[in-house]
This record gives sequence, structure tokens and C-alpha cells, in this order.
Amino acid sequence: MDDRLERQLDFIRELDRLKSVRRQTWLMDASRKENSAEHSWHIAVMAMVLGEYAPGDGVDVGRVLQMLLVHDIVEIDAGDTFCYDEVAASGQHAREQAAARRLFGLLPADIGDRFTTLWEEFEARQTPEARLANALDRLQPVLNNYHSQGKSWQENGITHDRVVARNRVMDEGAPVLWRYVEALLERAVAQGILPPSAI
Amino acid sequence: MDDRLERQLDFIRELDRLKSVRRQTWLMDASRKENSAEHSWHIAVMAMVLGEYAPGDGVDVGRVLQMLLVHDIVEIDAGDTFCYDEVAASGQHAREQAAARRLFGLLPADIGDRFTTLWEEFEARQTPEARLANALDRLQPVLNNYHSQGKSWQENGITHDRVVARNRVMDEGAPVLWRYVEALLERAVAQGILPPSAI
Repeated sequence: MDDRLERQLDFIRELDRLKSVRRQTWLMDASRKENSAEHSWHIAVMAMVLGEYAPGDGVDVGRVLQMLLVHDIVEIDAGDTFCYDEVAASGQHAREQAAARRLFGLLPADIGDRFTTLWEEFEARQTPEARLANALDRLQPVLNNYHSQGKSWQENGITHDRVVARNRVMDEGAPVLWRYVEALLERAVAQGILPPSAI
Repeated sequence: MDDRLERQLDFIRELDRLKSVRRQTWLMDASRKENSAEHSWHIAVMAMVLGEYAPGDGVDVGRVLQMLLVHDIVEIDAGDTFCYDEVAASGQHAREQAAARRLFGLLPADIGDRFTTLWEEFEARQTPEARLANALDRLQPVLNNYHSQGKSWQENGITHDRVVARNRVMDEGAPVLWRYVEALLERAVAQGILPPSAI
């Protein structure tokens, strides 16, 4: 087997480990927490369904898909950082940079560079594609938390103001979807599944 | 909320159930069997890495991605049919057709038609994109079975000849990868993790 194919397959073998990286989000039926691989699939299909809600002239949905498929691969080494954990967040960037170097470095350079560029574009949130991708990456856990009766919000003591502060950035990438989320979060408070803002 | 967005979000909510559809394939670390959502993510990233092995003038990898992301959604209703189970396979097509009608029918018609077309293209295996997508859908379980020491082959009594017969179609979509798999399967027999062909 030639060296190029061997490197490609080594990387594909590593990918399997993302299926064991557990997130704080519960499945909607509350049977278990989800992992980062199935989360990535979910939001990629969401991009195929909701791509029309990017503002302005629209986006290259194919590029959004590629970003979403790649965006969590660094968690194979760096783990999932719970978005409300400020202590863990402090070292997150350095951990993920090192992970990207090692993991994308397994690939032949041309493909590794392509993956690194996609991941950096997602993280930088400067293009319409990256803004939509980030909006979907935030929408999905809100939907899962809502439909699993707020289980993750409650067990982590997350209040309405923190969910709003965390997710407001959705407004850049998909304003219609952000307005939907704002209303959903108010409904969640009224239903008693999301604790109201701390006074 | 307008009716269009409501239908899109209803579909996205249904998608969550694919994370609970269990396949016969074990994770490479043999810790548990994988589900169809994380499998779909794995092969979509594989398309981004291995797209160059399509024969001829190459393929539209974006379309391959979309097909792979959609190809197992019918299993939400129809379940995963183990590829070596001939009894289950007999009703599979009708079950999946009904599932496609119900699930893609949840979406606004323009998006539902797009998803149906992608799924039918994948199933018909007539385009270079569909052939590559099918090849990757077969390669991934072979890799997982090999790296989990043949656990699924052994527990289901699957022999070398049946794995070859099942996967030979890879040669249409990615001949280089099929030659790799042929060699891998011979190695698996030599290592005692894939039972040899029945005499």
C-alpha cells in the first residue's frame, strides 16, 4: 500500500474515537447523552434543511457542510469543553490548536491543509458560511435541551440569561433562527424546564 | 412561527432518533456497537478524505457528502437491516420506501423532494457519485470489523466469501479501495479474525 493511502486510512481510523467523546447534551428522548460524532451528523443535515436562513445573498451550503463535519474532530484529543464551564474554557484554545496539529498532521499535507483551513474558518466566524455553521452548532443543543425537558440545563444549574448570552451570536448567522430560539427559551422558562435568570 | 419553519424543525427533531438505531458494527475499540448517525458522519468525512479514488474524471464530492448524510435517514422508521440477513432483506425495500415517504414528507415539498432524490440516487448506484458513496458505506464497516478483531464477523458467523461477495461492488466506485479491502480481508483470515470461506 502506498504511503498516501496509508496516511489517509490512519486518519480515518482515528476518527472512530470521536464517537466516544461525550457531550453535555442529552438525546431528545433523554435516554443518554450524545457524542460529538452524531452531533456533527445532526447539524450537517440541519445545514441542508435550514441553509436558506443565512442572511443576505445566501451561502455556499457545501462549504458549511464541510466545516460542520470537521469542526469537532479536534475533540478526539482535546475533549468536549462544556460551553458554560469557564475554567475548562481557559485552556481550550491551546488544547484544540495542539489537537489540530496532530490530527490533521496525520493526513497527506494537501488534505491536512484543507481540513485545518475549514476548522480555522469555523472558529474565526468571519465568513457567512462560518457564521451559519456556528449558528447551527448552537441551535441543535438548544433544541435537544428543550425536548429533553431541560435536563442538561437543570443538572448544570444554567439559567435563562446564560443561555441567551451564549447563543445570541446565532443572530449573525441566522437571524430568523435566533428569533425562534429567543421565543423557545422564554417558553422553556414559563414551562419550568429552564431556570429563570438569577436576580 | 410560520408553517415552513415548523415543518423543517419537526423533521430536525425526528432526526435525533437515528442516534438510537444500532448497527451490527462495533466501534474499533470494541466498547459498543455503533449507531447509524455516527456511522453517517464517519463516512461523510471519509468522502472528504478519499474522494480522489473515484475512477475517471472524478466526482462532485459535495453531492457525495449530501447523499451520505441522507442515506440512512429511512432507518428511523425502517431500522437497520443487517447486510447478511437475507430474511430481513426481503422486506427491506418496501419498508424503506414507506419510511422515505413519511420522513421526507415532513419537510416542505422542495426540500423533501431534494432529500428523496438524493436517497434514490444513492440506492440506484448509477452515477459516479452514488457509486463512490456506496463504496465508502461498505469500506467503513470492513475497517471497523477488522480493527475490532472481527467481533461482528465472528458473532454472526460471517465467512470470507460472504464478505467478498457483499463488498465487491466497491470496485465500481473506488477500485483502489477495493483492492485494499481484498488484501485486508486476506490478512484478516490469516490472522484468524475472519473465518475462512465455507468449503
